[in-house]
Amino acid sequence: MKIEIVFPGKIKNDFILVGFQEYLKRLNRFAKISVVDFDQSHSKDPKICVEEESKKLVKYLCGRKFTLLDVDGIEINTHEFSSFIKREIEKSEIIFVVGGTYGVSEEVKQLANFRLSLSPMTFTHSMTLLLLVEQIYRAMKIISGQPYDH
Amino acid sequence: MKIEIVFPGKIKNDFILVGFQEYLKRLNRFAKISVVDFDQSHSKDPKICVEEESKKLVKYLCGRKFTLLDVDGIEINTHEFSSFIKREIEKSEIIFVVGGTYGVSEEVKQLANFRLSLSPMTFTHSMTLLLLVEQIYRAMKIISGQPYDH
Repeated sequence: MKIEIVFPGKIKNDFILVGFQEYLKRLNRFAKISVVDFDQSHSKDPKICVEEESKKLVKYLCGRKFTLLDVDGIEINTHEFSSFIKREIEKSEIIFVVGGTYGVSEEVKQLANFRLSLSPMTFTHSMTLLLLVEQIYRAMKIISGQPYDH
Repeated sequence: MKIEIVFPGKIKNDFILVGFQEYLKRLNRFAKISVVDFDQSHSKDPKICVEEESKKLVKYLCGRKFTLLDVDGIEINTHEFSSFIKREIEKSEIIFVVGGTYGVSEEVKQLANFRLSLSPMTFTHSMTLLLLVEQIYRAMKIISGQPYDH
């Protein structure tokens, strides 16, 4: 089992970084997890940020299947998410991409095999990463038949 | 402006507690925030937990209008949420209720004036509290015309 989490930028809030690392540690019991974080764009113009970061993403992801976290994507519940992970992981690997502070280009959206929305509400880049690893951990517990620790 | 956040139980993860307190501090600039946390039930039976905690909630909330966070509630986006807060706060106060580890009784659900879902995905009690204060903070920034710090 191999899961890769790709994102430009850093996790900004210390408390989120602690939580993110905590879930990565827990996930190591279930799968080989790798985190690929690109340098974020230094431009102050949101448009240029999106453009520069998306170019790097397209180059890195070239020819690979990936799921993009996108507020305008499709919503699924936790059980559907665990079924999705189970199905995908049996094939090869799963790559999740979380866009930078200002999101990603249309090109990245079009290249994504699946666009997943966690909520119609807008969360920060860092919060999205925390929710993603928590949901992957929850899915792994469901797949392995273990009770979730509330 | 007065906002009350009511929940049984404690925030379990230290990193979430740090984040929750951070957002409460930031929110103090915009509104009078109060947190009412009841002792959680000590029963090991989820059904009894729900029953005991819900009884306390019903007693405390008696006759007051409140919004219940509920995975089966209505989803709204961040702008709709800020419009909701703006409208409600002009009337008097807003009370948000987050159920305990195993949720709340049907009675609490029926008494709620609005049942708000943050996501079709299941989050822990503690994570729901963190997301709620982050979204209230985001809404307050929108209402006051300030840019959101990403």
